[in-house]
Amino acid sequence: MRFTSEQRLNDGVLERGFTLGDIPGILWTPASASASAPVPLILLGHPGGLNKMYPRLLGRARNVAADGFAAAAIELPGSGDRPRSAEVEQARADVRRVLAAGEPVGGELIDRLILPLVDQAVPEWQATLDALFTQAEIGGPVGYSGGVISIGVRLAVVEPRIAAAGLFAGSFIPRVIFEEARQVTIPLHVLLQWDDEGNDRQAALDLFDAFGSKEKTLNANMGGHTGVPQAAGDAAARFFTRHLGGSRADAK
Amino acid sequence: MRFTSEQRLNDGVLERGFTLGDIPGILWTPASASASAPVPLILLGHPGGLNKMYPRLLGRARNVAADGFAAAAIELPGSGDRPRSAEVEQARADVRRVLAAGEPVGGELIDRLILPLVDQAVPEWQATLDALFTQAEIGGPVGYSGGVISIGVRLAVVEPRIAAAGLFAGSFIPRVIFEEARQVTIPLHVLLQWDDEGNDRQAALDLFDAFGSKEKTLNANMGGHTGVPQAAGDAAARFFTRHLGGSRADAK
Repeated sequence: MRFTSEQRLNDGVLERGFTLGDIPGILWTPASASASAPVPLILLGHPGGLNKMYPRLLGRARNVAADGFAAAAIELPGSGDRPRSAEVEQARADVRRVLAAGEPVGGELIDRLILPLVDQAVPEWQATLDALFTQAEIGGPVGYSGGVISIGVRLAVVEPRIAAAGLFAGSFIPRVIFEEARQVTIPLHVLLQWDDEGNDRQAALDLFDAFGSKEKTLNANMGGHTGVPQAAGDAAARFFTRHLGGSRADAK
Repeated sequence: MRFTSEQRLNDGVLERGFTLGDIPGILWTPASASASAPVPLILLGHPGGLNKMYPRLLGRARNVAADGFAAAAIELPGSGDRPRSAEVEQARADVRRVLAAGEPVGGELIDRLILPLVDQAVPEWQATLDALFTQAEIGGPVGYSGGVISIGVRLAVVEPRIAAAGLFAGSFIPRVIFEEARQVTIPLHVLLQWDDEGNDRQAALDLFDAFGSKEKTLNANMGGHTGVPQAAGDAAARFFTRHLGGSRADAK
C-alpha cells in the first residue's frame, strides 16, 4: 500500500489517498486514532466510481469518524480508471437493453453482471484489510457498510475480521448469494428503501430471510434509492457502535 | 372518569387506576408532569387482559415516562372482567379449532374475530382520550404504541389527536383494515418480529406497503413474538420523541 495524498480535514479527520497495486482507495481516520489508541474500521461499500461517489463517501466517513471509527473505500473492479471486463460490460449493456424493454432482469443475467464483481472485489477488500492493519492506528473489529450487498454477503462469510455488517439493499442479487447468506452468522443491519423503484424489494426480503444470523434487523423506509432518512442512518450508526465499540454515547 | 387507586412508584411515576363507565384503565404520569408543564400522551395497546399484561405494561409505561410522556392503557372489550361477546367468543373458538387442525385462518374468520373488537375499542379509546385531556397535566400530541395493530390503524385514520403510531405487527388483520391503511398519513414505526411463528409475516408486509404515510419505517428483528430486542425498543422510543417531543436526549 502506498499513500498518495494526505490532508487534515477541518473536523480533525485525516484523509489519505492510497493505492494497493492498481486499486485506488481512501482511508479516513479520526483525530483520536493513534498507535496507542487504535480504532475499529468500517469498510464503505459503494456502487463504483470513487471520484463520482467521493462527496457521499466523505459524508459517511465523517459520520463514521465522529463515532470513533476509521473508514476506508476502494475503487470497484471495472469502475473509475480501473480496466473494464468485456464480459461485465456486455452484461451491463444487456441489463440496460432488458430494462429499456420493460422486461425483468433474469437470474442468468444478474449472475453475469454481479458475480465477476463479487469474485474480484472480495479478495481485493481482504488484501486492503491486510494492508490497513499494518497501520498502527487501525485495530479491533471491522464492519462492512453499504452496497453492493452481494459483496457484503460474501465478505461476511469468508472474512473473519468482519464482525458486523450494515448492508444496503439496492442492487441485483445473484442466486448463489442467497445460498451464501445462510452461512452468515455475524450481526446484520439491513437498510431497504421500500419505494426504491430500481430495486427488487422481494429479492431483498428473501435475502434478509435467508441470512443465518441470529441477530439481524431489517430497517425499511421511504424516500427512494438515495433518500435514506437521517433516523435510519443514525440507527445504522448505533448498530456499528453496539457491535464494534467506538465512542458514540447514545448507542444502547 | 373516576380514579380508583393512586400510588407514586419509586422512580417518581404516578400510577393511577381509573374506570370510564365499565372500562378499567391505568394512567401513568412522569414526576415532571404538571398543570403548568403538561406532557404528551402515549396510548399503550395490548392483546387484552389488563391484569395479566400489567407487568409488561408497567415496564413500557416506565420507559415512556422516562422519556417525558404520560402513558395510558385500558382493558379491551371482552377481556379481563369485561363482558364477553358471544360472536367473538365463537370466532375465538373457531380460530383455535382451525389452528389445531393446522389450517390457515381465513379472511372471513379474521373479520369475525377482530372487527368487532376494533369497532368497539376505537370509540372507547377516543372517549378515554376525551377524559384524559380533562387532566391538566396531559397535553400535546398523542401516540399509539403496540398491538392489536388493527386498532392502531383505525385510530390513526379516525382520531386526529393521534400524531404518530408505533405499531406491533403480531395479530390477525381484517381485509378492510388494509383499505383503511391507505388513508393513514401520520408517521408510522412498525415493529415486526420476523420469526414470530404465530404471526402472518406476509400480511404484515402487505399492511406496511398499504400505509399511505410518506414517513413509515418497518423495523424487523429476530427473537420471536415476545423477544423484541432492546435496540428495537429504543428505536421505537426515539421515533415517538422525534414526533411527539418529550425529553429524551438521544432522539435524533
